[in-house]
Amino acid sequence: MENTKKVAIIMGSDSDWKTVKAAAVQLKSWDIPFEVHVMSAHRTPQATAQFTKHAEENGFAVIIAAAGMAAHLAGCIAANTTLPVIGIPVKGGAMDGLDALLATVQMPSGIPVATVALGGAKNAAVLAAQMLALSDTRIAALLKEDRVKMAQTIAEKDAALQAEIAAL
Amino acid sequence: MENTKKVAIIMGSDSDWKTVKAAAVQLKSWDIPFEVHVMSAHRTPQATAQFTKHAEENGFAVIIAAAGMAAHLAGCIAANTTLPVIGIPVKGGAMDGLDALLATVQMPSGIPVATVALGGAKNAAVLAAQMLALSDTRIAALLKEDRVKMAQTIAEKDAALQAEIAAL
Amino acid sequence: MENTKKVAIIMGSDSDWKTVKAAAVQLKSWDIPFEVHVMSAHRTPQATAQFTKHAEENGFAVIIAAAGMAAHLAGCIAANTTLPVIGIPVKGGAMDGLDALLATVQMPSGIPVATVALGGAKNAAVLAAQMLALSDTRIAALLKEDRVKMAQTIAEKDAALQAEIAAL
Amino acid sequence: MENTKKVAIIMGSDSDWKTVKAAAVQLKSWDIPFEVHVMSAHRTPQATAQFTKHAEENGFAVIIAAAGMAAHLAGCIAANTTLPVIGIPVKGGAMDGLDALLATVQMPSGIPVATVALGGAKNAAVLAAQMLALSDTRIAALLKEDRVKMAQTIAEKDAALQAEIAAL
Amino acid sequence: MENTKKVAIIMGSDSDWKTVKAAAVQLKSWDIPFEVHVMSAHRTPQATAQFTKHAEENGFAVIIAAAGMAAHLAGCIAANTTLPVIGIPVKGGAMDGLDALLATVQMPSGIPVATVALGGAKNAAVLAAQMLALSDTRIAALLKEDRVKMAQTIAEKDAALQAEIAAL
Amino acid sequence: MENTKKVAIIMGSDSDWKTVKAAAVQLKSWDIPFEVHVMSAHRTPQATAQFTKHAEENGFAVIIAAAGMAAHLAGCIAANTTLPVIGIPVKGGAMDGLDALLATVQMPSGIPVATVALGGAKNAAVLAAQMLALSDTRIAALLKEDRVKMAQTIAEKDAALQAEIAAL
Amino acid sequence: MENTKKVAIIMGSDSDWKTVKAAAVQLKSWDIPFEVHVMSAHRTPQATAQFTKHAEENGFAVIIAAAGMAAHLAGCIAANTTLPVIGIPVKGGAMDGLDALLATVQMPSGIPVATVALGGAKNAAVLAAQMLALSDTRIAALLKEDRVKMAQTIAEKDAALQAEIAAL
Amino acid sequence: MENTKKVAIIMGSDSDWKTVKAAAVQLKSWDIPFEVHVMSAHRTPQATAQFTKHAEENGFAVIIAAAGMAAHLAGCIAANTTLPVIGIPVKGGAMDGLDALLATVQMPSGIPVATVALGGAKNAAVLAAQMLALSDTRIAALLKEDRVKMAQTIAEKDAALQAEIAAL
Repeated sequence: MENTKKVAIIMGSDSDWKTVKAAAVQLKSWDIPFEVHVMSAHRTPQATAQFTKHAEENGFAVIIAAAGMAAHLAGCIAANTTLPVIGIPVKGGAMDGLDALLATVQMPSGIPVATVALGGAKNAAVLAAQMLALSDTRIAALLKEDRVKMAQTIAEKDAALQAEIAAL
Repeated sequence: MENTKKVAIIMGSDSDWKTVKAAAVQLKSWDIPFEVHVMSAHRTPQATAQFTKHAEENGFAVIIAAAGMAAHLAGCIAANTTLPVIGIPVKGGAMDGLDALLATVQMPSGIPVATVALGGAKNAAVLAAQMLALSDTRIAALLKEDRVKMAQTIAEKDAALQAEIAAL
Repeated sequence: MENTKKVAIIMGSDSDWKTVKAAAVQLKSWDIPFEVHVMSAHRTPQATAQFTKHAEENGFAVIIAAAGMAAHLAGCIAANTTLPVIGIPVKGGAMDGLDALLATVQMPSGIPVATVALGGAKNAAVLAAQMLALSDTRIAALLKEDRVKMAQTIAEKDAALQAEIAAL
Repeated sequence: MENTKKVAIIMGSDSDWKTVKAAAVQLKSWDIPFEVHVMSAHRTPQATAQFTKHAEENGFAVIIAAAGMAAHLAGCIAANTTLPVIGIPVKGGAMDGLDALLATVQMPSGIPVATVALGGAKNAAVLAAQMLALSDTRIAALLKEDRVKMAQTIAEKDAALQAEIAAL
Repeated sequence: MENTKKVAIIMGSDSDWKTVKAAAVQLKSWDIPFEVHVMSAHRTPQATAQFTKHAEENGFAVIIAAAGMAAHLAGCIAANTTLPVIGIPVKGGAMDGLDALLATVQMPSGIPVATVALGGAKNAAVLAAQMLALSDTRIAALLKEDRVKMAQTIAEKDAALQAEIAAL
Repeated sequence: MENTKKVAIIMGSDSDWKTVKAAAVQLKSWDIPFEVHVMSAHRTPQATAQFTKHAEENGFAVIIAAAGMAAHLAGCIAANTTLPVIGIPVKGGAMDGLDALLATVQMPSGIPVATVALGGAKNAAVLAAQMLALSDTRIAALLKEDRVKMAQTIAEKDAALQAEIAAL
Repeated sequence: MENTKKVAIIMGSDSDWKTVKAAAVQLKSWDIPFEVHVMSAHRTPQATAQFTKHAEENGFAVIIAAAGMAAHLAGCIAANTTLPVIGIPVKGGAMDGLDALLATVQMPSGIPVATVALGGAKNAAVLAAQMLALSDTRIAALLKEDRVKMAQTIAEKDAALQAEIAAL
Repeated sequence: MENTKKVAIIMGSDSDWKTVKAAAVQLKSWDIPFEVHVMSAHRTPQATAQFTKHAEENGFAVIIAAAGMAAHLAGCIAANTTLPVIGIPVKGGAMDGLDALLATVQMPSGIPVATVALGGAKNAAVLAAQMLALSDTRIAALLKEDRVKMAQTIAEKDAALQAEIAAL
């Protein structure tokens, strides 16, 4: 694990932490090193740009950015690095989060943001792990295990439901 | 007019010029000095930030920013200045421009963007002029004249319509 | 401060006060003089028009208007003055406030409303202050201070978060 | 017919005439007297308010108002009269006309606008006729005839289609 | 009042009563006779059609119909009468009531529904009264009184607010 | 095939025929008997109700209904029969067909409409065939053949594309 | 009933059971045999495909699938069988369930999903029963009884309301 | 380059090729090996699942999937692999492509799809390259060069615009 590159998790406001925490928990469970920071595209633009420009040399491989409303954070980060940037749109603004989703995903040609579902923090971590797994067999194996567990969980839930059905 | 501060018109892509041109034409018709530049929040983030940080000392009073899709331009400019920033959302992305509108207007607390209608370039110029007019009586007078002309135009169109109605 | 022009804050219903109050609080904190009134584009159209027509001579420089649903208030005010008008769309009608947002921002050519985010009362006050700051160095300095404080607050929140991260 | 009160058809821009004309044509075909005017809630607010305040004494019974974008016209007219006001939202702004629809229909308590479909000019005329027919037996009879004709037209179209079906 | 025609208030489900009640209360306060019924376009189509076809001969002048989701009720009623039909879209289905709004307002050519705001029961009653007032001077006078009261109420609320503003 | 029950294809306007034709063509290709009629929920409500009430005794097993805007047709048909009713929302009204989709699919409890995609006439025919196939082995076999053909077509298109890729 | 084919009710997550239960209860009340399973298009794709491919030979006639967000379940099931597939979009993702509705209904040509309203589990059961009733007279009779009961319930609710109206 | 893993570009219909081609062109320009295939989640589910399950062993590192309407393709692919999957929503269905966007991005927990903008094929290729660049210095360098070129292009366009501005 020592050689695994880090994942940065950046959020535009500390109020996003309740959404974003799932990404940190997931990465920790897989022993993938990460840092979490509050930085704003609008309130701390310089700090955000500086962090991003030096992210690669500071050992980061992937940056996850979470923001709501006019969610510029992921895009502003993507503008300052060629590392892959994953965007988590956060609900709470207009139209049940559609503002954050469109502001995150509708990036112009040349500067992509890999957008996950509204509030999809766990999936942002999984996607980051999938990227790292391209050159890290330990993580690749963890991801395959995770799929097996998911299928088992669903099978168990299906079994558990049968008793309730029988009692209808 | 020599003392009038300048208006900056920034667009994210030169393809926005066909929308934005109306702002330039309006400002010119009122002899309000302005500059127009293509700068991108995502493709030239440093240049955009630099221009904006020095805008005030370079004689600009208001910045108009036009962008489409995940329209971060106005917000990224607003993050780097305390001058008033006017955002023009440009159609062409998703949902008939709703992406650009929400990405422009839904700014977080502390960093406003004065958003006009989708493609509302002329109104961006009028709004900039209204701001300048707070301390410029020449422009204030022009704005009042403009209202009178608008009312006259409508009255003329109403008169012109009556012949067509009579012939129905 | 004696010479600072006033900001008018108009709302269509006293039920909007809980949203709009943040604008008043912000202006007060900066010692910018203001008045707050309940006036309706639909229920008191004459009073609204009269207030607006005399706003400039009564010492107002900027008018902030907040309304929900078919939010005509800002537009009806803008129709009766050449002062800059800032619109705050208020949630509570259809589609999570989209009705108020579109009814505020989609103004016809010639009559702009400077629209801020849904419920963005604080930003309406900041935008008004930015306009006043074009000819008022005291306010200009306050706005710059505010940005520094915002950045400090974010940095403090980032620092505070690190303990929680370490304990995950 | 001499005693039939008039219908006013007001549109915010002469560009709406291509949409609104169907209302005039329908009223004319039923010999219901009407006037058509271009008046803007934003560009000629005084003229609009004056026309509306005197509409009843000038022999109007119903006012039809058509506007697009932030379609304030019908609401501003309804604010100045207790005559029934019919709103036609006109496409062309944002989200395929949703801006005009919401801005027309989402009126606050106390001031209704009887809203018809996007571009529904003919239906605005039919609705106006239905209102007049409450105290005008000639118009009531015309409306009933119209329904019979509509049903016949559909039956004829159904018959005409059968040949094409047979030839599939 | 004996000669005043009745208003019918029809709702698709008794769960709509909490929304619709405001229409009944408003009509009662003006001594406008009315009936309220639960009838469904889908669950009691015959009863709905029969009621509607005989509405005019049974002394009704206007029919108000309230329904949610795929709100067909107003349209199905309009299909069976030439009396004016007012539609109240009720929230609770998809997209914050947009389904009910569009299903009520987007009627085909020839069969209008006079649509009011989402949940706009009071306005449905006001609109019905405006239609009756075209041939009933008592109701016309009541409507004008109502406008005066509304303006007074707003002025009182404005006055009441000033104390709170002073104490900020 | 003589014993196969018929499919009814009903459309609210003959202008829907260009969309609906694909359903007729598909049914014909499978020798499934069908009738096509123009009938309107709003313009010929009685004829529509009568046709539907007698549909079962007249040998119909499934009814396909296509309509746009406030698309009440499928729902009004479903209200008058317990046969399965398939709804095709037709584009052309508001919000790119969303009005027709919601008005077709959002049916109240007890009265379903089996809704297919916007303009999905071919799929309406396939769905009708799937229902008939539950008790008709000939149609069941045709549906399985169709799937094989579809897969072959895709494989052929994939093969055809390879030449173009090679030439990039 | 022994010969009645079964209905499968599949849901993508056990959290959907609170929505889906109404379908099971309705089928049980009509003695229509059914099974309920938790299976995911994304987390157990093989199990889902296997269940579906063998559904017909295992005695199923109709498959009901419920899922939220990017609701692929119904479509993925429809891809693996020619039995009719009914989709229930479940609220909880973006835009008040619009994501699930569009992901369920907007199927490509050749592979329909019979979509019911958001959360319309009871209607999914009714629709399944309507399909079975095409070759099962017992179920056909039950469906007709159900309509009579619905009409009676509405009539009773209408009667019950009259007392409340009288007391207004 | 020999050791570079391949990118798979899968589209649901050959009609998507005009959108998707930009991804292939971009990858080719960077000498990143790729394959393009037409495969459908609904019309060739087995082939799609088989291709995906064997993608990793067949030398693919990233899979790009493009689909419109109920765009299940990317999700169905992601369900069968732990390789990162990039989704391109394609316009053409409902609501200006919102159906495809939501169906691609709103994936359930555990199975992410890295979604790019509507029609964002070039960005899908850039994102794939960013992922490969994590362990491929040649591609990492190309991405950095690309940013420099983009900035130059914008600067050139800005310069080119100045002549036009001067001539206004």
